[in-house]
Amino acid sequence: MTKQRLIYLPLGGAGEIGMNCYVYGYGPEDRERLIVVDLGVTFPDMDTTPGVDLIMPAVDWLAERADRIEGIFITHGHEDHVGALGHLWPKLRAPVHARRFTGRLAQMKLEEQGQDPVVVQIHAARPEWIEAGPFRVQFLPISHSIPESASLLIETPAGRILHSGDFKIDTAPGVGEPFDAEMFAAIGAEGVKVLTCDSTNVFSHHPGRSESLLTGPLHELIAGARGMVAATTFASNIARVRTLAEAGVAAGRSVCLLGRAMRKMIGVGVETGILTDFPRTISPEDALELPRGNLMLIVTGSQGERRAATAQLSRGKYLGLEMKEGDTFLFSSRTIPGNERDVIRVMNAFSELGVELVDDHDGLYHVSGHANRPDLQRMHALVRPAMLIPQHGEHRHLREHARLAEAAGIAAEVATNGMMLDLTGDLPEVVEYIETGRIYLDGSVLIGALDGVVRDRIRLALNGHVLVTLILDEGDEPLGEPWAEIDGLPENGRTGRALLAALEEELAGFLETVPAKILRDDGRLDDAIRRVVRQVTMEEIGKKPEVTVVVSRLAEG
Amino acid sequence: MTKQRLIYLPLGGAGEIGMNCYVYGYGPEDRERLIVVDLGVTFPDMDTTPGVDLIMPAVDWLAERADRIEGIFITHGHEDHVGALGHLWPKLRAPVHARRFTGRLAQMKLEEQGQDPVVVQIHAARPEWIEAGPFRVQFLPISHSIPESASLLIETPAGRILHSGDFKIDTAPGVGEPFDAEMFAAIGAEGVKVLTCDSTNVFSHHPGRSESLLTGPLHELIAGARGMVAATTFASNIARVRTLAEAGVAAGRSVCLLGRAMRKMIGVGVETGILTDFPRTISPEDALELPRGNLMLIVTGSQGERRAATAQLSRGKYLGLEMKEGDTFLFSSRTIPGNERDVIRVMNAFSELGVELVDDHDGLYHVSGHANRPDLQRMHALVRPAMLIPQHGEHRHLREHARLAEAAGIAAEVATNGMMLDLTGDLPEVVEYIETGRIYLDGSVLIGALDGVVRDRIRLALNGHVLVTLILDEGDEPLGEPWAEIDGLPENGRTGRALLAALEEELAGFLETVPAKILRDDGRLDDAIRRVVRQVTMEEIGKKPEVTVVVSRLAEG
Repeated sequence: MTKQRLIYLPLGGAGEIGMNCYVYGYGPEDRERLIVVDLGVTFPDMDTTPGVDLIMPAVDWLAERADRIEGIFITHGHEDHVGALGHLWPKLRAPVHARRFTGRLAQMKLEEQGQDPVVVQIHAARPEWIEAGPFRVQFLPISHSIPESASLLIETPAGRILHSGDFKIDTAPGVGEPFDAEMFAAIGAEGVKVLTCDSTNVFSHHPGRSESLLTGPLHELIAGARGMVAATTFASNIARVRTLAEAGVAAGRSVCLLGRAMRKMIGVGVETGILTDFPRTISPEDALELPRGNLMLIVTGSQGERRAATAQLSRGKYLGLEMKEGDTFLFSSRTIPGNERDVIRVMNAFSELGVELVDDHDGLYHVSGHANRPDLQRMHALVRPAMLIPQHGEHRHLREHARLAEAAGIAAEVATNGMMLDLTGDLPEVVEYIETGRIYLDGSVLIGALDGVVRDRIRLALNGHVLVTLILDEGDEPLGEPWAEIDGLPENGRTGRALLAALEEELAGFLETVPAKILRDDGRLDDAIRRVVRQVTMEEIGKKPEVTVVVSRLAEG
Repeated sequence: MTKQRLIYLPLGGAGEIGMNCYVYGYGPEDRERLIVVDLGVTFPDMDTTPGVDLIMPAVDWLAERADRIEGIFITHGHEDHVGALGHLWPKLRAPVHARRFTGRLAQMKLEEQGQDPVVVQIHAARPEWIEAGPFRVQFLPISHSIPESASLLIETPAGRILHSGDFKIDTAPGVGEPFDAEMFAAIGAEGVKVLTCDSTNVFSHHPGRSESLLTGPLHELIAGARGMVAATTFASNIARVRTLAEAGVAAGRSVCLLGRAMRKMIGVGVETGILTDFPRTISPEDALELPRGNLMLIVTGSQGERRAATAQLSRGKYLGLEMKEGDTFLFSSRTIPGNERDVIRVMNAFSELGVELVDDHDGLYHVSGHANRPDLQRMHALVRPAMLIPQHGEHRHLREHARLAEAAGIAAEVATNGMMLDLTGDLPEVVEYIETGRIYLDGSVLIGALDGVVRDRIRLALNGHVLVTLILDEGDEPLGEPWAEIDGLPENGRTGRALLAALEEELAGFLETVPAKILRDDGRLDDAIRRVVRQVTMEEIGKKPEVTVVVSRLAEG
């Protein structure tokens, strides 16, 4: 009989926080049957990906093996786990498995991209098993900052894998199931070969705190506020949104949800039955009729996103609602590294309006959704795996998590995106490096991160652009003067001379003396013009811009 | 006699952390004699200022009144206080006053821009007075994260101002003078009308910690390290650099300074006599000859700057030196908000090399250079001013600092850049709003932030660029086909059709049917072509790029 093997291959999320995509396979080498766990996105930034709309894992390896994919399992509804489903599903075309709330979000992701949501199969949690080729998979409820998050118990002929997914240890998460230590202990007792595990908070040394700890402080804060109160958090953190709403109601305020994501998430929560007791909300129009002191807004945009409700409120009005001196704005959230500038911009804009700002400086108004270091240790101890593969972290997180496991006598291996592990034996073994990477949604098309498109944009942004057009007649003689245009460059050089005039003069001078053989040679003429342009700009403004040269040759009569 | 007044006008640093520039004036309205305190820079970022080299306050208001400037006083040598001196001095042309170490750095800033350093006058600290028109000014030694920082005591006929400059309360700062509470109390007892004061750490509720607290932990860390040790901090924090070097020597290591700024700062420290006992250092070439365990590198680039020594080491080699598994890299620094992505990138690169990373997670290896909230309160109590004007902070910091003063019974006013205060009476009074802003050093020229240059670059980066050239003959008929080029855009549309081909086909089709009157009209033709381009790109790639249209008309024979 052919030798069978159990493989693991991260395509996203291992070596970064974002765009999670993990593959498990079982079968003969290069004929393994595959399951995919999560298809997430990560978000662009101006530094590295200007103009890009979304970033997704390059799934070429999977796409080339689409006929071997038994199913796609979505652990929970965060964008970094399900956000790429609509874009990447057409390349994979396998059934999608999820629990009810997550499944509804997955369906919406498919619908948004014109895909048929019927491919999403909704499942109950353990004890239900989902058959997928050589795999049997169970959704295990686990606490996180979104309802209905799930770990996956993956049975294979080579042993059982527990894929933690994003989690925290919270016995009172508000909405969604509490952490069930007994269940994980029982699973551990039955034997787990591999724990693939969230590493996000491995550097946080104190035990994680429960969502329920926020109820008191939030109620107190909102009860004590004068004027209008507004609070922001991630819309998907439905437990938090509910606590905020309840605190508002307890303080005699009417609650108004602002921002599309906020209304969508609460809507899906109610529709799927996970949210049965959300306070009545009012519309922005009705909110306008109320005295400020009777109003509580819950808004999107905790990361300072420029177009979200929070940023708009900070700049003035949003749907007619306006924050003023004496109002209170609460960030019931943490700023994700990289978003500091945007959040600070919003905070200062509120400060200028005279709004009281409350952030999570003291940990009273926000708790993390991820397991801290002692919680990870507890999970290791409950599950008692033979091996641990850290997931969901930058390289430094994965490495630290592997060390933590090794210190507890568990074999561990840092596998970053593209590193295929063979998990068949007693120790994880790196067997192959798969070419992987990122693809960008750019407008309406998907482009490769290495296509050069974004690199060209960054160059334009850093260096500016000069365009030179020149017409040559049938005898390869310049017809009229060369013409220059500049974009993103100073108008005047350091001596005050106009840059355009300087360019056109120097180019005209160059054409007067340029040998005919260069004029006849497109490549050499292009190079020579480029050289003149860069010399002039370097001298006048101290920069070397991007240069486009267009030489038009009039054809013989 | 004409009424005299005392005015205050921040041109930079009030409403932001960076590019400090404050003006004081005394005399009849609109004829006040002026002094300028500090001429600093702030640093560009890709989000808002791609391609820009440095950002400085727009000093047009001052430049128009250059004949009224009695002097420019530099409090200390940080870039956000002296970095713009070389660029802006030619607009102001007034004597520059500083203490020895700061003065040497100021001279270097002038020399770098081809200015004569002789305009810098070096002064001793209190009790020396500097006469500057109606002002008498004293440099008051104060502790900060750079040696020889100074507050300014400014005597005017309308009362005395204490300009704190950047400071912390540290009685053992290592290098530079300790905080002298008695001196400030004595000055307070003699009467201070206005305290203009650092606000950076007003949200830090615990008392500030002394630089000297780091000595033990740093020695211990470095003594316990195997392999090579490298540490980064701001080069200007000479006390920290010395402590690091001493810890290295104590652990039997030879010390090598890497990075231009590091060598420059230590050089100026020795040259000006403030640093007499820095351990002997070795060159990078000699460092290469030593066993790794005997080596300690102190390197620039604590903010993850891509070209600095730290980032280069994280990517591989720097001057032949290479970090490896088992080496230790210490960030003896804090990440300035906005630099997180860069620092995290460097950390993960080190993690991939197997280097042990130590950061300031627990506060053991770094202390702030600014006064925390209780320290600000102590300063208020020592100086007992009639008014407090917060400086050196974003709006939220200034506002909080003003509240803190008001709670102690001190009149306070938030004055952001461009707000002129009259300080003659018992309460600060806003008397004028000056048009102010930022100027950019872009290559070798200074451009206004509102010139549109950078806005155009950002548009190019977000939207990409399409160029269309078209030649019309003497009869306004198209000569040949229109020609398109794309830059920073996907090559193929969502149907797989080449974008360039699509553009050229549609443009050719357009030209076949376009009415002659449009062909004759440059403006309308340009608009029409632009419309065709955007329609095609929107359809093919879902984006609206920047478009340049060049129509060349052949002149009548």
